[in-house]
Amino acid sequence: MNVDGQPTRTIAALPGQGGVSIIDQTRLPFRYERVVLRGLADAARAITDMQVRGAPLIGATAAYGVALALDEGVDLAWACATLAATRPTAVNLAWALARMQSALLPLPAAERCAAAWAEAAAICDEDVEINQAIGRHGAALLQAVAARKAGPVNVLTHCNAGWLATVDWGTALAPVYAAFDAGVPVHVWVDETRPRNQGASLTAWELQQHGVPHTVIADNAGGHLMQHGRVDLCIVGSDRTAANGDVANKIGTYLKALAAFDNGVPFYVALPGSTIDWSLADGRAIPIEERRPDEVTCITGETTAGEVVTVRVAPAGSAAANPAFDVTPARLVSGLVTERGICPASRAGLAGLYPERV
Amino acid sequence: MNVDGQPTRTIAALPGQGGVSIIDQTRLPFRYERVVLRGLADAARAITDMQVRGAPLIGATAAYGVALALDEGVDLAWACATLAATRPTAVNLAWALARMQSALLPLPAAERCAAAWAEAAAICDEDVEINQAIGRHGAALLQAVAARKAGPVNVLTHCNAGWLATVDWGTALAPVYAAFDAGVPVHVWVDETRPRNQGASLTAWELQQHGVPHTVIADNAGGHLMQHGRVDLCIVGSDRTAANGDVANKIGTYLKALAAFDNGVPFYVALPGSTIDWSLADGRAIPIEERRPDEVTCITGETTAGEVVTVRVAPAGSAAANPAFDVTPARLVSGLVTERGICPASRAGLAGLYPERV
Repeated sequence: MNVDGQPTRTIAALPGQGGVSIIDQTRLPFRYERVVLRGLADAARAITDMQVRGAPLIGATAAYGVALALDEGVDLAWACATLAATRPTAVNLAWALARMQSALLPLPAAERCAAAWAEAAAICDEDVEINQAIGRHGAALLQAVAARKAGPVNVLTHCNAGWLATVDWGTALAPVYAAFDAGVPVHVWVDETRPRNQGASLTAWELQQHGVPHTVIADNAGGHLMQHGRVDLCIVGSDRTAANGDVANKIGTYLKALAAFDNGVPFYVALPGSTIDWSLADGRAIPIEERRPDEVTCITGETTAGEVVTVRVAPAGSAAANPAFDVTPARLVSGLVTERGICPASRAGLAGLYPERV
Repeated sequence: MNVDGQPTRTIAALPGQGGVSIIDQTRLPFRYERVVLRGLADAARAITDMQVRGAPLIGATAAYGVALALDEGVDLAWACATLAATRPTAVNLAWALARMQSALLPLPAAERCAAAWAEAAAICDEDVEINQAIGRHGAALLQAVAARKAGPVNVLTHCNAGWLATVDWGTALAPVYAAFDAGVPVHVWVDETRPRNQGASLTAWELQQHGVPHTVIADNAGGHLMQHGRVDLCIVGSDRTAANGDVANKIGTYLKALAAFDNGVPFYVALPGSTIDWSLADGRAIPIEERRPDEVTCITGETTAGEVVTVRVAPAGSAAANPAFDVTPARLVSGLVTERGICPASRAGLAGLYPERV
């Protein structure tokens, strides 16, 4: 998607290789800065320090990390072990490393370096293709709304499942970008997504850069907007989807799904097939990460003087709890938007799109 | 309730009068500072600048403002007009001023000053009595939970409907304090309540000062906690209640009520009868205040250096919307906790408690 009017990916090998350019997402939305990763240590640190975040982008960064490591003469197994330890729970990280190993291990050592760069680039291109397909299928939902009402199609989204979380296009926002680029009038309600504010900081930034009209709202506001007919549909992403269509996503997603259901607003979840956990019969078994309390009690922002500082908003000494995800039951989900099409959030629905998995 | 171990009211005439002591709530939770109001201008500014907030406390401050004005020799009508203009939409403000006028107008000018101080004190004492009665009725709900489970009674609340919003005890928190003081083990989940963070800043502070165990959570977290049986009941306040039991309260209340309903968690609303708007058949007609966007895009907190600063958390140039309240339909409310007892959230329920109003 665009940054300053230029089509931009979140990650790209430098021409002639030898380095990989990423966005330092810890500086957004206050600074847009690209950082060049020059070796394995840089790649590992970028993942650990969350300069890159979002499962697909983490996977892509790990793949390029392997290529950078081989360039440095680092052993393949060591490189993979180092990268795997950066964010132990990220599914795409393990997936990307396994794919790199199975592509490279059969090759003679002399060929691995070039093959690693090619395989990492392929992983990125495939991510883009998958997200474009999600965008194509999902855009039809927005076009259908546009065909029956005047004014913009109002989409509500939660957290950041945009191009910043992937290589390009995003998952939940891919339909928005696809519709917008096709000339459909779109407006996005952006949940700020406390405690880490990925909506206010990342989603708002990337929509603004691409020129998509949007409005930031407190997470508390979505229900009221739906009660008053100001949301046409919701689209969110998914961190993990159970085989029955239950969806684990950023904390607060469940509350928006309840409000959508109560008000007859369609609630869609956009996800690549890779995030479906076929081993889970339903969402109850999905473990929910409990993160640091200071993510709740402290907030980072920019002062009027342009300084980025962290402030505490709760009294010193008050405890805080910070569950990072919740599970939205499939009964509240209108449909799953995948790279293969849209299906009901049910075992039968998913089986229809992914018959080889059941 | 207690501050630093001392029973404390939010507002009190100084001994010998001539001044009124309030808490500067704009400094909480970072500083506990009392301010003395010496005249009409001080009282008006305290309301306008939100040093005092919460409908009952605003009413009490206006009443004392009249007393301070008469002490200064200001005309009664002028004093009331000045105070009425401070927060034009606050119902209790108009009510308190009307009550002061009807108490004072029949009196000879020479007696009005002393009568004004007495009437303001009476308004405060009555507010405390009403809230104590709400506390007594509501505490029975917590005691019933305590009688059937081990461990603390987990109460979830939204915004600040505690003693800081009233003269003492609060509305939603009065049952919590009453139960806690009676030895019931209580733990409160405190919604931070974006965008103005009244939960994280005020509710957490007052619970901490009184020694009530509590945990601050992002507004997004409550649904997840309810899904996992970690909330025994919800109690919130009400800014305005329709005659059918629909409740207007801080934005986000509706989302918590939906989650409570979906998980079989009782959802109570605590309110003095004075907040019932008998002229409203249902909540749809309640006007919802749209507040400044920068309440969403900017947050105030304390740096590690102890400086209180405001930071922007969204990109410059992104629009924000800020509806301040939402309406929770009566069908989601388990009961209304009033000074006269607990009733179903319905026209018949309210009529049973307030037969003189129907």
